[in-house]
This record gives sequence, C-alpha cells and structure tokens, in this order.
Amino acid sequence: MITADFWYKRQDVFSDRKTAMSQRLDALIDSQHLRPLLPVIYIAWADGTLANEEGQRIRELAGTIGPLGSDDARVLDEWLSPQAAPSATECSVLRRRIREQVRHRQPSLAAMSAAMNGADSTQVTDAVGRYAKERNISGMGVSSEIFQDAGQPVGQSFNEQPSRFNPARVQAVLEGDYAHEWQQVRDILEHDVFAYAYDETSEAARARVLRWLQHLAEHRDMAASALPESVGGQGNMAGFIHVFMALAMFDLSLVVKFGVQFGLFGGSIIFLGNDEHHKTYLPDIASLDLLGGFAMTESGHGSNVQELETTATYDPATQEFVLNTPTMSARKEWIGNAARDGHAATVFAQLNTGGESYGVHAFVVPIRTDDGQAAPGVRIEDCGPKMGLVGVDNGRLYFDQVRIPRKNLLDRYAVVQPDGTYESPIASDNKRFFTMLGTLVGGRISVASACVTAAKKALTIATRYGALRRQFGGDDGKELRVLDYRTHQMRLFPKIAHTYALHFAIEDLIEQFRNRTEADSRHIETLAAGLKSMASWEAIDACQQARECCGGLGFLSENQIATVRRDIDVFATFEGDNTVLMQLLAKNKLASYAKGFEQNLVATIAKELAGKARTELLEGNPVIQRKTDEDHLRDADFHLEVLKLRAHNMLVSAARRIRKRITDGMEPFIAFTDIQDHLMAYAKADMEHHIAVCFAKRVAALEAGPTRDALETMRQLAAVDTIYADSAWYLDQGYFQPTKRKALRRLRIKLLDEIRPDALGYVEAFAIPDGCLSAPIAFEDYIGREPLKHAADDGVA
Amino acid sequence: MITADFWYKRQDVFSDRKTAMSQRLDALIDSQHLRPLLPVIYIAWADGTLANEEGQRIRELAGTIGPLGSDDARVLDEWLSPQAAPSATECSVLRRRIREQVRHRQPSLAAMSAAMNGADSTQVTDAVGRYAKERNISGMGVSSEIFQDAGQPVGQSFNEQPSRFNPARVQAVLEGDYAHEWQQVRDILEHDVFAYAYDETSEAARARVLRWLQHLAEHRDMAASALPESVGGQGNMAGFIHVFMALAMFDLSLVVKFGVQFGLFGGSIIFLGNDEHHKTYLPDIASLDLLGGFAMTESGHGSNVQELETTATYDPATQEFVLNTPTMSARKEWIGNAARDGHAATVFAQLNTGGESYGVHAFVVPIRTDDGQAAPGVRIEDCGPKMGLVGVDNGRLYFDQVRIPRKNLLDRYAVVQPDGTYESPIASDNKRFFTMLGTLVGGRISVASACVTAAKKALTIATRYGALRRQFGGDDGKELRVLDYRTHQMRLFPKIAHTYALHFAIEDLIEQFRNRTEADSRHIETLAAGLKSMASWEAIDACQQARECCGGLGFLSENQIATVRRDIDVFATFEGDNTVLMQLLAKNKLASYAKGFEQNLVATIAKELAGKARTELLEGNPVIQRKTDEDHLRDADFHLEVLKLRAHNMLVSAARRIRKRITDGMEPFIAFTDIQDHLMAYAKADMEHHIAVCFAKRVAALEAGPTRDALETMRQLAAVDTIYADSAWYLDQGYFQPTKRKALRRLRIKLLDEIRPDALGYVEAFAIPDGCLSAPIAFEDYIGREPLKHAADDGVA
Repeated sequence: MITADFWYKRQDVFSDRKTAMSQRLDALIDSQHLRPLLPVIYIAWADGTLANEEGQRIRELAGTIGPLGSDDARVLDEWLSPQAAPSATECSVLRRRIREQVRHRQPSLAAMSAAMNGADSTQVTDAVGRYAKERNISGMGVSSEIFQDAGQPVGQSFNEQPSRFNPARVQAVLEGDYAHEWQQVRDILEHDVFAYAYDETSEAARARVLRWLQHLAEHRDMAASALPESVGGQGNMAGFIHVFMALAMFDLSLVVKFGVQFGLFGGSIIFLGNDEHHKTYLPDIASLDLLGGFAMTESGHGSNVQELETTATYDPATQEFVLNTPTMSARKEWIGNAARDGHAATVFAQLNTGGESYGVHAFVVPIRTDDGQAAPGVRIEDCGPKMGLVGVDNGRLYFDQVRIPRKNLLDRYAVVQPDGTYESPIASDNKRFFTMLGTLVGGRISVASACVTAAKKALTIATRYGALRRQFGGDDGKELRVLDYRTHQMRLFPKIAHTYALHFAIEDLIEQFRNRTEADSRHIETLAAGLKSMASWEAIDACQQARECCGGLGFLSENQIATVRRDIDVFATFEGDNTVLMQLLAKNKLASYAKGFEQNLVATIAKELAGKARTELLEGNPVIQRKTDEDHLRDADFHLEVLKLRAHNMLVSAARRIRKRITDGMEPFIAFTDIQDHLMAYAKADMEHHIAVCFAKRVAALEAGPTRDALETMRQLAAVDTIYADSAWYLDQGYFQPTKRKALRRLRIKLLDEIRPDALGYVEAFAIPDGCLSAPIAFEDYIGREPLKHAADDGVA
Repeated sequence: MITADFWYKRQDVFSDRKTAMSQRLDALIDSQHLRPLLPVIYIAWADGTLANEEGQRIRELAGTIGPLGSDDARVLDEWLSPQAAPSATECSVLRRRIREQVRHRQPSLAAMSAAMNGADSTQVTDAVGRYAKERNISGMGVSSEIFQDAGQPVGQSFNEQPSRFNPARVQAVLEGDYAHEWQQVRDILEHDVFAYAYDETSEAARARVLRWLQHLAEHRDMAASALPESVGGQGNMAGFIHVFMALAMFDLSLVVKFGVQFGLFGGSIIFLGNDEHHKTYLPDIASLDLLGGFAMTESGHGSNVQELETTATYDPATQEFVLNTPTMSARKEWIGNAARDGHAATVFAQLNTGGESYGVHAFVVPIRTDDGQAAPGVRIEDCGPKMGLVGVDNGRLYFDQVRIPRKNLLDRYAVVQPDGTYESPIASDNKRFFTMLGTLVGGRISVASACVTAAKKALTIATRYGALRRQFGGDDGKELRVLDYRTHQMRLFPKIAHTYALHFAIEDLIEQFRNRTEADSRHIETLAAGLKSMASWEAIDACQQARECCGGLGFLSENQIATVRRDIDVFATFEGDNTVLMQLLAKNKLASYAKGFEQNLVATIAKELAGKARTELLEGNPVIQRKTDEDHLRDADFHLEVLKLRAHNMLVSAARRIRKRITDGMEPFIAFTDIQDHLMAYAKADMEHHIAVCFAKRVAALEAGPTRDALETMRQLAAVDTIYADSAWYLDQGYFQPTKRKALRRLRIKLLDEIRPDALGYVEAFAIPDGCLSAPIAFEDYIGREPLKHAADDGVA
C-alpha cells in the first residue's frame, strides 16, 4: 500500500499558507450543511455590515434546513458575528465559489443555494426562498452582486454579427394568435420556485414537480382556460394546448403532470361528463384540491384499448357500478398521478348491465382516501424508476369489486337508468367507443406540440454552444467555432428546419381542431396520429444530435439537453405508440381511398381494394426530372409536387399490394401485417408532404421582407433535406436523374452556408427564456483562456 | 374540496374484513423499515418453525439496517415469536408480495430484499447478504422456495420451436479463443454483490460501483491479466479487452470504472512507464490499494489533445516537476475516479525543462491524501450529475504549482536527467506524441467492444419480449406476438445482424492488435478509430430501437434497456468524439492514398493530392448492374465487390474535391472542413466494407453445417441492409438498375422471414446470463390473462 509518506515525503516544500481567516472560509465551504448558505451569508455581508438580528435570522434558517452540529454552529458564529466582517480576499473567494457553481442568468437566492449542493435541495430551496421573499432579495439583485465584475456580461459572449432578420418578428410569426399564452407562461416561469434540481430520488423529484404544478394552479386563468364557461373557464382548448406547448420550454415532467391533471383527467370530465360532473369536479381539479389520473391503458392493452378487460358491472340493488380487475393484464398501467398524488381517476372499463356488455365507458373512481391511503378495494403500485420523466408518479391500479355510485359514469354518450336500462344516442358500441376516444384527441395534439418545444430547447442550447466553443485551428490563431464545421451544421441546421416545419404543421392542426365539426373529426384524428409520431421521432433525433454536438458537456445534467433527451424518449410511445399510429394513419388513408368505413377497418379496406378495378399512379413530369437550375430546386411548387407524387404513388402501390394478397387468398389482417414496412414508409411520405404544405402555406401568407426571407430559407432546407433523404425512391422510380440528386445535394450544402450567419437568430426566435435554457454552455465559453487565479493567489489555500 | 364523506358515504357496503392476523401482515408490508426483511422472514419460517436464536438474529439484522422504531419492534416481535407461525394464507400473501417485486431468476436473498424497496438498498444488500452467507442460503434455494408453484418455470414461457441451430455452437464461434474470459466473467457475476439498484443518488451509485469493482479486484488473475509478467501478470491485453467486453453484459458504469482503473490508469503506467514504475504502482493498482485516474482531457481540449495547456516544468534545484493549470480551459475534465475515489492520476502535461518545451508527456501525480482530502495544491471538483453512467465519479482537476519527484515522469519515450537535460529516442515532438498516444489504442478498442456487448444485451431483452408479448389479433383467437409484426422485425433483426458483424470486426481488430508491430500501428489506430465510431453509433441505435420496441416497459429502469440506453450515449463522445475520429480515419486513408505522412497531415495530404496526376475510379460490372437472381444477391462476393467499389470511389472523389479546392487557392484546413460531409460519408463506407469483409471471412472459415448456415443468414442480412440503405448512391452512380434495388428490398424482407423462427436462438448465442438480463420482460409474459387473485380472496384485505 502506498502511504501518504510515500507521496508526501517532500511535503515540506509546501508552505503552510493557511491562516485563521482562511480556516473559517474552508470550514464554511467544506460543511455540507452550511455550504448551501454560502450565497445567503455572502449577500448578507454584501454591504460590509451585518445586524445582530440578521445573523439570528440566518442561524434560524440553518436550523430549518436541518439540525446543526456543534462544529457547524461554531463556524456559523464565526461568520455571523457583527464584528467579523469578511476581508476582501474572503469575499473574493466566496464569490468565486458561488460563481463556479451557479451558471444561470439572474438566479434567485434559492436557486443559488440549491446549486451549492450538499444538502437536500428541496428543503434548502424552500427555506431560502422564504428567507429571500421576506427580505425582498430578487434574482436580479443577487445576480448583480455576485456577477458584477465577472467580465463581459453573461449571454453577450457571442462574438457574432446580428442576424439579418429580427428574431422577434419571426417569433411573432411562430406564436401567431397565441403570443399571450406563450408570454404568460414565460412570466410565470420567472418565479423562484421554478429552479432545476438534479441527482434526486424519484420521491424528491415528484415532490418538486408537484410544487411546480401547485404554483401553476395558482394562475387559474391559465391552468383552467380549457374549462367550460359554465364553471368559470373560457372553453379555450387551443389556448390550453399552447400553454402545454410553452411549458415544455421548462420541464417535461411538469408538462406531463400538468397534462394528466388538466388535459386528461380534467379533459375526460369536460368531454365525457355532463353539467353536474362539471360542477362537481372541475373547480376542484382546477385548484388541485382534487388530483386525478386517467386510467385507460392496461398492462395487456396499451395500443389495443378497445379490448381492455376492467369491468364495471351495474348493480341495480344499490344503484352502483362495481369495478373489477379480473386478470393481471387488466391492471391499469402507467397511470400518471396514481403512484403518489392522485385521489381519483377516470377509469375506462367495459360497462355491463342487465347481463349485457356495452363496451368501454369512463367512470370517476376514488383511488385514495383523504389520509393518502389507497381507497378500500383499490390496490396501487408504483411503476418504479424510469429512464426519464422522473418527476411523474406513474402507477398501477387494481380494483377489487370497488363500488361507485351510478352517477359516476361519465354519461355524455350513454346513460344507465336506475333500473339498469342502458340508453345511448349512438347505437353502435364501436362507433360510440371511437366517438368517445375522438373527443380526447386534444391530448395527442398537445403531446405533439410539446415535442416541438423540446426540440427547440435542445437545438437552441446546442446552437449557442456551437457558436461559443472552439476546437482545432483555423488560420487566425484562434481555433474554429464548432458551428463552422460542416459536419456540425449538417447535424443541427436540418433539425432546426424540421422543427420550424413541424411547428407550423401543428399550428395548422390546432386551428383545424379549434374549428372542428363532426364531419372532419376523423380527418383530425388521422392528422394528430401522424403528426404526433413525426414530432416525437423528430424531437428524439433532434435532441440526440444536439446531445452529441455538445460532446461530453451535452451529457451533463446541468446542460439540460441530457434531461430533455431522457424525458422525450417515451413520447414516441405514450398517447399511442408511433408505429401503431403510423399504421393507423395508413389504414385511414387507404380507407378513404377505398371509400370504406371505419367499422372493421381492415376487412373493409381489403374488400374495397380487392374490388377496385383500377388504381392511378401520378406521372412524373419528364422536364422536371432533369431540371437542375437553382430557382427550380428552391421552388415550393417543385417540392410540393414531388412530395405529393411520392405520397400518392406509395398509397396506390400499397393498395395494389394488399389487393394482390387478398385475391391470392391471404387473410386481410395478415395481408396488412405483411406489408407493414410499406405502410410505414407511405405514412411517413404522406406526413412529409403534409408538413411541407403547411410550411409553404404559412410562408406564402407573409408579406415580403426579411422575416419572410428567413422563413423561406428554412422552408427550403426542410424540403430539400426531406426530398434528398429519399432520393433513392425518386431515382428508382425514374422521377429524378442522377444530375438532379447531385444538384439537390449541392443546394443543401449551400443552404447551410446561407443559414450559418443567422443561426443564433433562428434559435433566438424560439424565445426560450434564459431560465429555461439554464445550461451554462448556452451562455458563455466558460472555459476561458485567461490566466486562472488559484486560491493560493488570494493568500488562502 | 371533496371530502372522504363524499367519496365514502356508501362505505358501509365494504365489510371490515380485517383480522388480527392480517393486521400483523399489513403492518409488516407497510413498514418501510421492515419491508426489505420480508423475504428473510418468509424464508426463516419456510419450514414452519423458527428457533429463538434465529429470531434474535433477524432482530439484529433489522437493527443493522437502521434504528428500529417502537411500532416496528412490536411488529417484528409478533412475527418472530416461535409460537406465532404464519398461517397458510399469510404465507401465500407474503409469497405473492415477494414474487410481485422480484422478477429475476434465482435472485439472492439480498437481491430480493433490495427489490422490496423502501430502505437504503446498499445497507440492506450488505446486511442481508452477510446474513444469507452465514446461513448458507443460496439464490437457488430462495428461488425454489418462493417460486416453486408459480406456474410454468420462469424463462420457459416462450412457446416457440427450438432454433434450427445450436446457439451454444454459435456462441463458441463468437467467443473463439476467449471463451475462458467470457465464462470467468459470467461466473464472477453470479455473486450476490452484483445486484442492480435504481433510483439512487450519484453518491449511492458510486459507492455501489466501487463495491463491484472491489469484488472484481479480488479475482486478481482476471483484473490484472493485462499486467506485465514482471509484476505477476500475464501481459495479456487481448484477454483483458475480452474481460472488459464481457463486463458490459452487466453494467456500463462498472465497465468504465474498471477501464479507468486498469485500462487507462494501469495501462498508461504499463505502456509509458519503466520497470520501476511497474513495480512501484502496478501491484497496488491491481489490488485497488491505489485507485487512479487518467487525466488527459482538458476543458478546452477534448479532441485536440496535442494543444493541451497543463504544464509540467522541471526544477533542477529540487529535482521536481511543477505541475500547473494556467487557465480554466486547462483544467482536467471528465476524469474518471477523480471526483470520489482516486488517490492518484496519470496527468498529461506539456513538459518544459531548461527553458524549452518538448510537448505532451505523462506524469504520475498524487491527487488525494490518505484521509481522502485533495492533495495540497490540487483542487478537485465533481463534474456533477449526468445523463447516464451515474456510478462513475467523473471530476475536474486543477493543479496549483504541484511538485512531484522527477521519477514520476513516465519515461519510456523520454527521460529528463537530474540536471534537466531532455533525452528521447524519438527526436520529433510530434512523432513522440503520436507514438505515446498509439500505445493507448487498447482503450479505444475496449470501448468499441463494450458497445457491441451493450447492443447484444438490449437486443436480447427486446427480442425475448417480442416473442412473449401479444397485441392485436391474429386468427387463432390469441393476439399476435409482436415479434411477428413486420415493423418489429425490421427494427430489431438488422440491428442483430449488424451486432454480429461488428463483433467479428472487433475480434479481428483485437487479433491484429495482439500481433501488432510498429509498422502496422498506424493502420490499427485507424481501424480502432473507425470501429469505435461505428460500434458506438450502432449500439446507440440498437438500444434505441430496442427501447421503442418494448414500448413503455422499455422505459422502466428494471427492464435494463433504459439504463443501457442512457449509459451508452456518451460512448459516441469519449475515447474520441465519433465525428472527429471518422474525419481522422478519412484523413489517414487519404494520406496513404496520397502516400503522405502523418506530420502536418492536412497540408501534406493536400499537397500530395493536388500534385497527383490521375485518380482511378473503379468501374462497375455492367452485368452485375442488372443481375437480380437470389443466389447472386445473397453472394458474399457481390456484397464485398459493391461495398469496396463504393468505398474506393468515394475516396477518389474526396481526393478530387480536395485537389480542386487546393488548386483553386483554398487553405488546406478550410478545404478539408468544406468537404467534411463527404469525408464522413466516405469513412462510413470504408468501415462498412471492412466490417462486411470481416464477417464474410469468419463465416467462410467455418465448416459447413447449421452453425455456418445460421451465421451466413445473418451475414447476408447485414450486408443487404447496408447496401440497400445506400442504394441512392448505387442508383445515382449507375451501378444498380432500379430492378436490382427492388430485388434487394424483397430479399431483405425474405431474410427477416428466415430469421424469425430462430430469433431467440440468435440472441441466446450472445449468452448474456439471466442475472445480467434481469429485465422481467425478458423472462415471462408477466401480464398473464389468468384470473387475478385479489388479497381479499385470501380472507385478508
């Protein structure tokens, strides 16, 4: 064993630089308990004096955080004696210690304390937050005190030309009629409570996210904007979706918890319940006096919801429904708000009455008693630790003959009379089921929208980092900014372009949703399925590229991308598995192509297609195949034409394949399974065309000028990148000549060059507040080359 | 506020089923402190009697885990009185509770206790582990006691035909001469200490991983196999790499910690130090008496290591080197073992002596004193929470004029005499630097190999889950296995094929590495750079597909894929950023194409290429362009020819592009940056060709029979998938006709069908032990449809 002697036999060369003064400094910094109070103590001493009373208050604060050991108490006394003002050196060391830990702009005192690490961050945040509030210490004040001489102001360290357009105008186009909702969320997120924490257990993270949700709920006009006017809301689902979308700037666990409470639990009562249900539940849901879950998914039935097994059997003797979980596969799975906080849930179950089964219906079911225990007959399990979304308390629910009053059936689409008679305006169980599900499509749209925001955030951080970080050398003696590398641009800029494209496609969908009629509900559901899949996969990929583009720093939690990347992963799975949704989209499109109807979709489509005499392929324009001039390649008409042609012809080809298999005697279900890969490729092509149309439409509606030019460049990159990515198909089908593919590749590169000088402007237009970006790497090249001042240089070690 | 009265005004319908018996059961289950002891208590009572002494021992055990409250003590008394044997019902409930929590096969008692959750898992695992050891309670015994009547044995729930080949024979091909190392690791991983834990703080995870490492170090012949024979090792680097590769079956934090300690810290001393260094340090490194880091990377110099800024200045007066961190960008960043456990590090710094600078050299530097404090002059920071690898204590190091003895220079390639004279057998600083770096190539190979194992693990879990999980319906009344869906096969099977392919390519590399000479060191470094990039990107993608293919269950930590996915992400970044490595590969290949040399690589290549008169493109064979018969498309010769043609022609095309830019007057560095996307595509094509060659060579060497057939099918899928993915290039260049692309697509689908019946066999051949798979979803369709027995059915609520 190598001993200290071995290492330090020459220790005598190290002079003992320690002084009495530095000892109290070391002790303060080394104390796990006191370290979080370092910013508090620094600020308290900032004007050079400390009242006795102030010292007393800080001692109390230390006590609040946890019991104080005798050593810690002594150290605190040394720092809080009014006679013991810190020296300039001590101040300097303290300030540097704080700066090193805190990299946000304008952190609150609580956020700074939490950043000092070492104690339970929740307790610290709360206690210090109260202290700061009492004393009226603002984030701005703290910031100017701690960062006043920290060199160039944080955030102004980009040494780039301003973009050639005004990012605020692009932002205005993005936010459209919902600038109010976006700004409202930004304002609310300014509050001290919205501070990030890392390295927590699930329990701590869940408690934190609940606190955030509680804070949001205080802004009743925002959280409850979706409520019907009858209970004091505005019935503004589109506004609500934008709030959801904007919250994703901050944290996806909060987004999901918010969505579960207001969108799913609240939404199911709004859309499936009657006025009495609204009055009974919605005010308490809005105020969080009643937290609830949305218990649809079962362990055995994630995608195939119509087959779920939980039963709700009506008992006319007591006028109750009896809910039961007959098998393991029938347990409710992944239910948000179930594991910890929820007291009720909307439970989907097969309704049985009078010996007949009427398919899936929704019921309001209590799951916890006031004291937080599982309600009688209800068993609750925690789904356990997850890859991400650690702040969401997903749980499993089992019902053991749980009785609920008759009126707990959400009965907009079906009523059970006291004697057990079942009545519904929709005779078909199947149609009723899909009608009920259809009312909940807002949830899927919300999820899609949050994905776009998550991508914006990750791309903003990575782009800013790319403009700050230098590596390997150019010719001016300075290393090159990594954003100037072609590989870096190729990874980030097309992702930014697709994020813009998806943003506009989702805005278009929200608008259609806002103006929906029964006639187009099917169309909207199909679009929502497709865009949710595209947006989540695109966000996963954007976050992944952003992560890799920031190297190891992208892997650090404090730089945010890591958290977003972990959280976003499951967005490809929940609210409908992407693969299943894309198949659904393809089938719906085939159905309308085959003029079939939704009932027994697969068989109907198969029959219609097998009977259809003729299918029409679109012909490519022979002139276009060879045209390679740049104006043509940049032209929206060209993009939309080839994207439409591809989608249409893949649809026709899918229909032909199915028809062939059916006429060869294959079972319809198997025939569809057999060509799943083709259906998937078709669904993607269809969505890519749709997204390109939305982007082109939005740009065309703008007045000429720099804003429109900026968006047009992004539109071109999105379209060219999409078309180029599937150039094998175009070449294969003879729609392109190889020269055309080469010209597209050159244009794609050229577009990267056109975007590069404005890259920061493009992400600034996403308008993610600094507090949400939070990542140190987004604000400064904090690994500066100026000489490092060692502690020893201050005369303390 | 909705009150309990509102919910429960009909509570009278619930009869009070509780009995005195069930109260002690509830109390035991509800007690956070006692819950982990539930398996211990159950096993203790398993034969129906409990000796007084045994009860006493369990009480002590409970005390070890933490102080016992009076309620808990009372409950324990109720359970441990020899007169109070549990009833059959109590036993049944207890057993079910345990089964529900524990889904491993043959868990140890400690693992079961940890799985019960509720207390600090480390303490529980340790204490219960000791208890089980004392009492000789084996995992097998526990398992048969708890799971004896749990229906069909876990793991035999796949209702599939055996594969048409013997997985053990395929495994033997995969493991080749290193079956011993693989089995040795599997045997060691059987130990109780190797139990997974989730939802920990970094501190707990780091402590756990250190315990794992300590256990590994006890198997000295394994951990220290890479040591030179002079200090009792076997100098077996290839064996060591296989141990590293095999450990990735279990946990990647452990792999990285193991790699830092033995591969990087130990390896730097082995390869850069002299015999005295070996004798002084290596035995303590092997025994973990000396934990150390590898301090190369600096904040400002991740990829551009030659420019790092830390200085080591020789002081002849004291015969010491003085290490200093001059700027923030010079701090050592990401250093494994630095934040918590390391007491020393190999530090790379610019060596200055006699007023001259000689470039980067390595020094052994103490970083902590025996009491765990930072060594004088050394400042240590924690890098902080990360996206994954939470069990690795990455830290930052700053040196403030830290003095170390002259002999701490690792001086195999350069000596500083006492008077400060510098001597080296390699005159060029540049060449010396690359020679020193070159000796460390084993680290990069190890990282590549671990990626392949990580992909194997994730794909094994996802494939097994796919064979168990059913969703939506086929015709036999049962829903279809998800592995029978085309989209599912399309996601998983090509990934399995590429994993096989990469495995053989890396085995080939290890073999070349084992037999390396100075002449081929450059070639091996180039291969290592390329394969590390390919393997890490491929593993990230394989894990991502596996995650999504398991839906929400893939997002749960207990199902392992989530953890592997998080951990593997940074493998694309560390040991060389993939993008940088792929550019390096392209440049090295261009250099040998241009017959240039490594010094000032870019300028030399540029000059050579600009001067080169003629570049030769390979011509495609016109017959082959149209050939679409299946034998041809399956043929290795066809695959290798077109892959080679593509790689070669992209290289020539890259050379032409650079030559054009240089002759147009562009600066060489900018010219290379300008065509980075092309270099990246070329590097990928080159690696794809190389990987296909390795796979084909390995298969060709096998005797005819089912083993060879099985691998040949996988080889075909890997090759066809690779070629098809870039069919745009082949079409564009006129090497394929569209009919050929269509035929390849059809063959790809056909190969999926051929692989499907043997899918389980293909992943069984990866031979990941059950304890490493661990994921419940890999063992049983645990969401069975049999009627659920509620607690109430046992007469207890």
